[in-house]
Amino acid sequence: MIAFEDLTPGRVFQFGSTVVDHDEMIEFARRFDPQPFHLDEAAGKESIFGRLAASGWFTAGLWMRLYVDGLLLDSTALGSPGGDEVAWPAPVFASDELFGSLEVLEARRSASKPWMGLITLRAWMRRGTADSADVVYRARFTGMFGSREVPQR
Amino acid sequence: MIAFEDLTPGRVFQFGSTVVDHDEMIEFARRFDPQPFHLDEAAGKESIFGRLAASGWFTAGLWMRLYVDGLLLDSTALGSPGGDEVAWPAPVFASDELFGSLEVLEARRSASKPWMGLITLRAWMRRGTADSADVVYRARFTGMFGSREVPQR
Repeated sequence: MIAFEDLTPGRVFQFGSTVVDHDEMIEFARRFDPQPFHLDEAAGKESIFGRLAASGWFTAGLWMRLYVDGLLLDSTALGSPGGDEVAWPAPVFASDELFGSLEVLEARRSASKPWMGLITLRAWMRRGTADSADVVYRARFTGMFGSREVPQR
Repeated sequence: MIAFEDLTPGRVFQFGSTVVDHDEMIEFARRFDPQPFHLDEAAGKESIFGRLAASGWFTAGLWMRLYVDGLLLDSTALGSPGGDEVAWPAPVFASDELFGSLEVLEARRSASKPWMGLITLRAWMRRGTADSADVVYRARFTGMFGSREVPQR
């Protein structure tokens, strides 16, 4: 069980990969982001993406799922208040294999709630391999994690 | 059709509201964010949210859909490279009525691509009414929009 004390700056977690399913990608866009270039091959071709491309929120969701399976479900995670970076440096296409990872940037114990730690995290989603330079999603956010040493009362 | 030139700093768009569907909220969490407090009433009650709460990514998706329907589909939108703030100041619960809006913060024409403008946008999702102080989602990001005056070549 990963607790606040385990999330030390510099630590990197690799979450494995997921493959973008064409139909699910479009189904997601139809519900949450029905812009033509996320729905239609021809519109995608005419867009700056050059092809039918995934909604960035779908990519974010795929990363989140890798993070939940790869770390959060076996942790003291308490949620997240948000972050200060979300970037989609390159479009995502159907059948892409995307590799998720996480780097711990900063860690501090909450002053008012010492049973809780605030971790600054860097999220990465890379295309093709786990160390590819082809980054399709990058984020920086805060994760709240329970402490192993200080019980909540 | 809303183009770059229409998105002047200070302009505010109200997108109306959406109601959080209990089953869809859980279905989303099961696929993208299956942490116990997003899936299960009892786990939600024990969490810092105090109740079964929506994944923040679901809230972001609901806001995106309001933005697409309320502005993007009748615009020259070209996509987004990302943003520098995503915040979930309060948890979202089933049956909440959420009101989306957008404020234009900055606008500049691309130097290298004068047919395109880069707009800095503030996203808001408020609970209960369109001007409620109960903000459940706030984001700041960049939108790319085609120009009405300078055609792409």
